Amino acid sequence: MISKEQIANWFRSLQDDICEQLETADGVGRFHEDQWQRAEGGGGRTRIIMGQHIEKGGVNFSAVHGPMPEKITTALKLEAGADFFASGVSIVLHPKNPFVPIIHMNVRYFEMSTGTWWFGGGIDLTPHYINTKEATFFHHTLKDACDQHDINYYPKFKKWADDYFFIKHRNETRGIGGIFYDRLSNKEGKTKEDHFAFTQTIGTTFCKVYLPLLNNNKHKSFSEKHQQWQALRRGRYVEFNLVWDKGTKFGLDTNGRTESILMSMPPLANWVYNHQMEKGSAEEKTSSLLKKNISWVD
Amino acid sequence: MISKEQIANWFRSLQDDICEQLETADGVGRFHEDQWQRAEGGGGRTRIIMGQHIEKGGVNFSAVHGPMPEKITTALKLEAGADFFASGVSIVLHPKNPFVPIIHMNVRYFEMSTGTWWFGGGIDLTPHYINTKEATFFHHTLKDACDQHDINYYPKFKKWADDYFFIKHRNETRGIGGIFYDRLSNKEGKTKEDHFAFTQTIGTTFCKVYLPLLNNNKHKSFSEKHQQWQALRRGRYVEFNLVWDKGTKFGLDTNGRTESILMSMPPLANWVYNHQMEKGSAEEKTSSLLKKNISWVD
Repeated sequence: MISKEQIANWFRSLQDDICEQLETADGVGRFHEDQWQRAEGGGGRTRIIMGQHIEKGGVNFSAVHGPMPEKITTALKLEAGADFFASGVSIVLHPKNPFVPIIHMNVRYFEMSTGTWWFGGGIDLTPHYINTKEATFFHHTLKDACDQHDINYYPKFKKWADDYFFIKHRNETRGIGGIFYDRLSNKEGKTKEDHFAFTQTIGTTFCKVYLPLLNNNKHKSFSEKHQQWQALRRGRYVEFNLVWDKGTKFGLDTNGRTESILMSMPPLANWVYNHQMEKGSAEEKTSSLLKKNISWVD
Repeated sequence: MISKEQIANWFRSLQDDICEQLETADGVGRFHEDQWQRAEGGGGRTRIIMGQHIEKGGVNFSAVHGPMPEKITTALKLEAGADFFASGVSIVLHPKNPFVPIIHMNVRYFEMSTGTWWFGGGIDLTPHYINTKEATFFHHTLKDACDQHDINYYPKFKKWADDYFFIKHRNETRGIGGIFYDRLSNKEGKTKEDHFAFTQTIGTTFCKVYLPLLNNNKHKSFSEKHQQWQALRRGRYVEFNLVWDKGTKFGLDTNGRTESILMSMPPLANWVYNHQMEKGSAEEKTSSLLKKNISWVD
């Protein structure tokens, strides 16, 4: 059976591969790496880029272990007194050009000394301006990736993303969603190898689905008006991550490495009281598409 | 005995008075008012200013009533099935000049049809750059206000503010604190009239303590470097409000009026990964003073 070391090694190589491809796409920016250790066991490599096209981006790898923190045992309703191991790769990219979407990806593996284990992850997209062709391409690519493993995955995980990336107090989704899944384990006839293979497909889909969106839009001309809207959408991104995102809240509440967790925060965000959009504008069109249950693949 | 209508009327007139004084201090900006109604009863007046010195500010009045929402009954551990009445004034001002501090004030009254009632509130200051002379003036003014009513108030409410306005994941306070108090009720020989008189003192202290800080600093020259630091401190303000502030979280979670709650969000905030301060700089000095239990009045 595949070991946790093999899984972590693959995550580490995924981080290397993605960073290399993103540096090429940016052309100028280079990732700066911080290696950090966790007192109770393990550590990570936080990599940050501030480039010409990726204004601020983070590609983080971590593999941590030790006794299960009590807060986590309670929150996840797990057996107390066990040791745990967790590893994964997390990405958030805030592009400079308002016509390039913000992207988020996470793939992770968790196991306990009691024998419990699972995989989780997902990819979702937050365009400042929704381009319906690109949204369709994005969802189709995710669906194709899912379909290689289980034709029930895409519809299930697409709905999960819609429900998860929802800004309740704004009654709007964070972006156009994507896929989100958690606790994939040895149920429904699936093995650890099956889920690892799925995780690898999702991990390698990241560049395939994002680089075209970055490269096709990074040279588009934009005005101050577009940047103002981008700053507002970044504000909503902050609202989701700090108010509703369980991972962020949990990390901040359990003494996670704050700078690694909050690498997801954007550069230059703005809040305008009761912002009103022009009727018929591109901003209004985007706003009208920030809702659950839009089918992008039919 | 003083009625809830008298209390709400006083809050309304406090809002009027403060708005007038702030418009004078700003010189150019004028408050824009949104009146809103709450479906279950009551409503409010949200007033926003975008001026030359107050870049973005909100002075809100509300007086709402109706059946106690179940979420609130549970969260506050109150008797179920009762009606409630709540009124107050809330202020957050984000100044343009980085040498003018951000300020927050809240005074509020709450009662239930069961007879339970209390007052709460406070004033606290978040300088982008801490000026120790001004910090001393600020705390002295609050202490004088408290001492008129009870000499135990300032030490107790100052500590409460230190503990409340704390950004746990940064291990730093939001600013230099001030006073914070809640659930002042008919205990320790105090009457509703006593607490209302204290509330009035705090409400009228707002302009006395803030206008000098605004007027003395609003014309100071500043550079892009100071604005960058201001944007970072605004980011921390966002982090506190969205991650830790019970009032904000509670409002967003119970279908409060989002635009009124989030009037506290700043214009142009920024997040820089792992920002490092220059040794011996004004930024580092400020950062070193963002901790609990500093005595500003000795």
